[in-house]
Amino acid sequence: MSFEIPVRVYIEDTDAGGIVFYGNYLKFFERARTDFLRSIGIEQSVTIENNLIFVVRHIAVDYQSPARLDDVLAISCVVKSIRPTRVLFSQSANRANDGMNLVNAEVEVVAVSMDTLKPRVLPDTLRNTLQQTIGTIDV
Amino acid sequence: MSFEIPVRVYIEDTDAGGIVFYGNYLKFFERARTDFLRSIGIEQSVTIENNLIFVVRHIAVDYQSPARLDDVLAISCVVKSIRPTRVLFSQSANRANDGMNLVNAEVEVVAVSMDTLKPRVLPDTLRNTLQQTIGTIDV
Amino acid sequence: MSFEIPVRVYIEDTDAGGIVFYGNYLKFFERARTDFLRSIGIEQSVTIENNLIFVVRHIAVDYQSPARLDDVLAISCVVKSIRPTRVLFSQSANRANDGMNLVNAEVEVVAVSMDTLKPRVLPDTLRNTLQQTIGTIDV
Amino acid sequence: MSFEIPVRVYIEDTDAGGIVFYGNYLKFFERARTDFLRSIGIEQSVTIENNLIFVVRHIAVDYQSPARLDDVLAISCVVKSIRPTRVLFSQSANRANDGMNLVNAEVEVVAVSMDTLKPRVLPDTLRNTLQQTIGTIDV
Repeated sequence: MSFEIPVRVYIEDTDAGGIVFYGNYLKFFERARTDFLRSIGIEQSVTIENNLIFVVRHIAVDYQSPARLDDVLAISCVVKSIRPTRVLFSQSANRANDGMNLVNAEVEVVAVSMDTLKPRVLPDTLRNTLQQTIGTIDV
Repeated sequence: MSFEIPVRVYIEDTDAGGIVFYGNYLKFFERARTDFLRSIGIEQSVTIENNLIFVVRHIAVDYQSPARLDDVLAISCVVKSIRPTRVLFSQSANRANDGMNLVNAEVEVVAVSMDTLKPRVLPDTLRNTLQQTIGTIDV
Repeated sequence: MSFEIPVRVYIEDTDAGGIVFYGNYLKFFERARTDFLRSIGIEQSVTIENNLIFVVRHIAVDYQSPARLDDVLAISCVVKSIRPTRVLFSQSANRANDGMNLVNAEVEVVAVSMDTLKPRVLPDTLRNTLQQTIGTIDV
Repeated sequence: MSFEIPVRVYIEDTDAGGIVFYGNYLKFFERARTDFLRSIGIEQSVTIENNLIFVVRHIAVDYQSPARLDDVLAISCVVKSIRPTRVLFSQSANRANDGMNLVNAEVEVVAVSMDTLKPRVLPDTLRNTLQQTIGTIDV
């Protein structure tokens, strides 16, 4: 399953260099992960109530070309692999009007108990729901 | 008591207009309030443990002149008045190298219980500590 | 004309108090102003090319009730009045699912030359376009 | 040369999970890079005037342990290697009170012309200044 959301670049996202600040793509990627999870029935405010949050453990981000004010970006999110306590996402930011690839990222998140912040095994239903999205990625 | 902290303007604070984004002064003002409270012995992480947080209820901000990349600002914070559940702060951002006044604000915060977010009366010691700063404002 | 946009609250917008950080509503309001201006044909990246940017001169914000993670907000933007170099907007944030009013703001912006940051008179076409939205506000 | 700056965690940096939002470390790392460059005589506002900006090309970030409200962090910045148009930095965030390592990052920046955003060779003096910091890293 290929999931993506549109993100408009507002003045808040830009910096004095006239382009989107490099840290702000991590907001865009997080929005896409959240909306992806919600689209398969996993609501963040619900997992928090169940004492589970996803914490980012590792990211690698390639910045190919900068986005600018008023650009509309397509931010993608797909599950690449699942481990007992972790999920690896592959994400990208493409410019919507011409499809130009701007930024690519791999984001590994770990499930932790919100109170202790210790890793915990993904609940079965959550794991299965994520697993089902892998077999159906559009290529 | 006149309290102020220095804040350097980094690229994260600026926008494509080449100046500090108007919302980011609210971060600077919040940093100064937090440091002011800490300087008189009120630690935010402690008040949170005691189920009390300060929530901003009203702000009025005058933007006189913009700050730019690399500027160092002096952000001030003084208590103007105290009511049973509320504290009114007066704050400003001045450019450090020439003292030019850039932004002025009034910020009213209300003490609320963190779990219910309902207003609660300021604990006596906290109120007294705040009260003592009023009599000693430098003019 | 009553203009509004939906804004989803993401984790980036919240703080350790569990609610939206007070400065982040200024991002939401700016997004709504930008989209409002775009909806009447005024594109920010175009006005920047013409050496005109809108700089916020004054804001007054009332925080009635906090927004939380995953909330969807309706952010409104209407023109209240126009002066030679300035435009006054009235804006609000309501929770979408029950219409509860959370935050209200008045935002005064001034048109400035981007190079000098000095105020400049609004171009006639821009002023007329804004003026036409005032007569048609839904009440 | 080992360079580091202290960064206090404010409420703006945290999220509803009670910890620092993962994207905000990129702000901390950028502040340290900027201050590091300033400490060796390279002022960002000056390089912008000379039509040169550094754009981040690649980052890899390991999040070991989360920072929390009121924590003071030591953010480090050292030059690892220099290529004709690029500089690779190694950075980390450690908790100041006990030295615990929280986050580590590698950040590759590329020098670009501000108007075209095309890569450009580092000016000799700038390259030499950076080069001199490599030989003197404390280990």
